[in-house]
Amino acid sequence: MSAIRRTSGGVCAPSGFLAGAAACGIKAGKAVRDDLAVVVSLEPSVSAAAFTTNKVKAAPVLVSAGHLRRGRNRAVVLNSGNANACTGAQGLRDAASMADAAARLLGLSAREVLVCSTGRIGVPMPMDRVLGGIASLAPGRKGSARAAAAIMTSDTFAKEFAVRVAADGGVFHIGGIAKGAGMIDPNMATMLCVLTTDARVPQPMLRRLLRRSVAGSFNRITVDGDMSTNDTVMMLANGASGVEPSGDVLLAALDTVTRELARMIVRDGEGTSRFVEVAVRGARSDADARKACEAVANSILVKCAWAGGDPNWGRILDAIGYARIPLDPGLVDIDYDKVPLVRRGMLAPRGMERARVVAARKAFRVSIDLHAGPGSYHVWTTDLTEEFVRLNLAE
Amino acid sequence: MSAIRRTSGGVCAPSGFLAGAAACGIKAGKAVRDDLAVVVSLEPSVSAAAFTTNKVKAAPVLVSAGHLRRGRNRAVVLNSGNANACTGAQGLRDAASMADAAARLLGLSAREVLVCSTGRIGVPMPMDRVLGGIASLAPGRKGSARAAAAIMTSDTFAKEFAVRVAADGGVFHIGGIAKGAGMIDPNMATMLCVLTTDARVPQPMLRRLLRRSVAGSFNRITVDGDMSTNDTVMMLANGASGVEPSGDVLLAALDTVTRELARMIVRDGEGTSRFVEVAVRGARSDADARKACEAVANSILVKCAWAGGDPNWGRILDAIGYARIPLDPGLVDIDYDKVPLVRRGMLAPRGMERARVVAARKAFRVSIDLHAGPGSYHVWTTDLTEEFVRLNLAE
Repeated sequence: MSAIRRTSGGVCAPSGFLAGAAACGIKAGKAVRDDLAVVVSLEPSVSAAAFTTNKVKAAPVLVSAGHLRRGRNRAVVLNSGNANACTGAQGLRDAASMADAAARLLGLSAREVLVCSTGRIGVPMPMDRVLGGIASLAPGRKGSARAAAAIMTSDTFAKEFAVRVAADGGVFHIGGIAKGAGMIDPNMATMLCVLTTDARVPQPMLRRLLRRSVAGSFNRITVDGDMSTNDTVMMLANGASGVEPSGDVLLAALDTVTRELARMIVRDGEGTSRFVEVAVRGARSDADARKACEAVANSILVKCAWAGGDPNWGRILDAIGYARIPLDPGLVDIDYDKVPLVRRGMLAPRGMERARVVAARKAFRVSIDLHAGPGSYHVWTTDLTEEFVRLNLAE
Repeated sequence: MSAIRRTSGGVCAPSGFLAGAAACGIKAGKAVRDDLAVVVSLEPSVSAAAFTTNKVKAAPVLVSAGHLRRGRNRAVVLNSGNANACTGAQGLRDAASMADAAARLLGLSAREVLVCSTGRIGVPMPMDRVLGGIASLAPGRKGSARAAAAIMTSDTFAKEFAVRVAADGGVFHIGGIAKGAGMIDPNMATMLCVLTTDARVPQPMLRRLLRRSVAGSFNRITVDGDMSTNDTVMMLANGASGVEPSGDVLLAALDTVTRELARMIVRDGEGTSRFVEVAVRGARSDADARKACEAVANSILVKCAWAGGDPNWGRILDAIGYARIPLDPGLVDIDYDKVPLVRRGMLAPRGMERARVVAARKAFRVSIDLHAGPGSYHVWTTDLTEEFVRLNLAE
C-alpha cells in the first residue's frame, strides 16, 4: 500500500535536486524576464526521456537524444525565447555548447547534461548572451518556481506539481515543472516537462514507466491538433531517499504528477474557454477508440460548437464517421457528463435541452460508446474560440 | 482537337434538360425562399454518382445509391433546410417518398429519380410540406439559376457553370450546379453537385470519368477538414447532342466544370478571407504528397497564420513533420507563389519579407518540394478567421 499526497517544491521536492533560473535576454535582446533554467541532481542519477515524434526535430532534441544514450544524465538546461529549430548545423553546435556551458558551471561532463529549447524558430541562438546567462545560473533548493516561470512562452501561469509518497517502509517524492500552451510570435507549441524523483529506480524501469506514464498523460492532450518539433519530457532519478519502490507504486505516483501537469497545459490553452475530456469506449480496439477520440477532439467544427456552448451531436457523429474505423452509426451513444444526448444514432428525448446545460460549463466530458467491442481511449482537449484565432494570427 | 468555351445556362446548357425550384418552407415552416429543386432529362439518360465516404450516411444517400444501381436515372430532386440525416428508418421512408413524388410529377418510375438533401440534421422531414412542394415544381429550360439558389444553405452565392465543347465534328455541353460552404445552425457542411451533359456517353465510361474528375476537383477541397454525411455528386448524360466524344475530350470538359465549381465552393467558405492552393511535389508517392497536403491544409495553426497574412514557415514544416511520411527536413523547399521562403529546411534570404507580400493577397499558392521522389498532389483550402469561428459557434 502507498499513500500519495500533494506537496510543494516542484522539481526540488525530491531530495538532492536543485533548480535555478536567470535572465539573459534571448528574445528581447535585454534581460527583462528569466529565460534560462537549470535542474540538477547533487548525486549521480539515472535518466529517461520521451521526445516528439515529429519528423522535424529541433537541434536540442537531437543533441539530448545523443547525450541520453547511457541514461546517466544529472542535469537539464532549458531556455525560452528561441526553439533552436530549423537552424541547421549551427543549431546543433549551439545546443551542444549550451550543454557544455552548463556542465562547466555544475562540474559535470557535457554528456551528463540534457538541453531543451522553446520559442521562436529559424533564428540562430544568441550564443553570447546564452553562454553568459548559463554561467550566471545559481541553482538552489528553492529554485523550482522560478525555473517553471523561466520556461514559459505564451503560458499564462507557471506549472509545477509534486507528490510525497509513503510506501514500502519509506518516503520518496516525485516533482515536475512543465510548459505548454499554444504558439504565438511565431513560437512552436512546444510542450516541455522535467520530472525528478529521489526514489531509487533502475534505469530500464525508469525508461519503461516514463513511456507508460507519458502515453496516459501528455500524449492524450490536444489543443490545436499540431505536434511540435521540440516536445520533450525528461526524468532524473537520484535514489537520494534510499527507497526503491515497486514499479506499480512508482507508476501510480508518476501518473499523478504527469496527468496533473498535462491537465494544466490543456487548461492553459491560450484563448480557449473550455476543458473537454473526449472518452470513447466500445470500439473494436483501443487503437480504433483513439482514432475516434482524435477525430472528434481535432474537428474544427466540433471545437467551434463547444465554444458556443453547443453540444452539437451532428458534428460529433460526422467526425466519428470519417475516423476510418469500422462503425455502425445506428449503435452510437453520446453522453455529455451524465446526460444522454444520442441513443442508437438518434437524438435522445430532451437530449439537446439537457446537454446544453452541461456544454455551458467550463469543463465537461463527452462520452461516446460505439457498441462494437472492448476498445477504449480518452483525450483532453479544448474548444476553439475567436480569441484563440486572434492570438494565433501571429502577426 | 476540341475547343472548350464557357457558356450560360448551368444544368440547362445541355440540350434536353429542364430545371426548376419551389418554396415549401422546410425549415422556417413558411415558404420564405426556394428550398426545393429538380433537374430532369426529357430523354432517357444514363447516370453516375460519387457519394460521401463518411461512415455515417444520410438517408437520401442510401436511397439514391439504391436507385443508381442500373445507372439509368433521369432526374434529381433536391432540398435545402433539412439533411434528413440521423433520422433512422423514418428518414429512409421519407427519402423514398420524395423520389416517388418527383417521379409522379415527371411521369417517371421512382427508381429513375435520385434524391439529395442538405441542412439541419436529426430533425424529421416535414413531409406534408415537402410532398406538396414537389408537386408544385415546374421545371423549364431556364430553371438552372433558381435551382442553384434553392439548394444553398449558408452559401453566399449560387454556383453554376457550363461549357460548350466543339469536338469530333459536333457540339456538346456540360453544365452543373453546386452548393458547399461551411455549416451553421447546425447544418452539415454538405457539398452537393448535379452535372448534366447532352453528350452520348456509355454508362461505364460516365462512371469512370466522373470518378476521375471528382478525384481532381471536389475531393481536393478542404475548408474545415470535416467530411459530411451527405456529400454527393451526380451526373446525367442524355445524348441529345448526338455527339459521342472520346474519353479524353469528355474528361477535359468535365474537369473544367468540376474544378470551377470546386473552386467556387472553397471561395465561398463562410467567414474565410483567403483561397490557398497547397501543392506538394517531390514526395515518395502521390499518396504521401496527399498526406502532406492535407496535414498543412487542415492545420488549425497554419490556417490561423494565413488569416493574419503570416507565411509562417515553421507551422508548415511542423505540419509536414507529423504527416506520417518519410521526410528529410533538411531537403524541404517552400515557396509562396514564386517567392522562395524555405530552402533545404532553412529560411531563405529575405524570404519572410517577400513572402509576406504574397500572403497578404486574397489568393495564393504554397508550393512544397520534399525532394524525395516523384509524388505530387494539391488541395484547395482557406484560412481560419475569427469570423469563421463566430459563424460556427452555431448557437
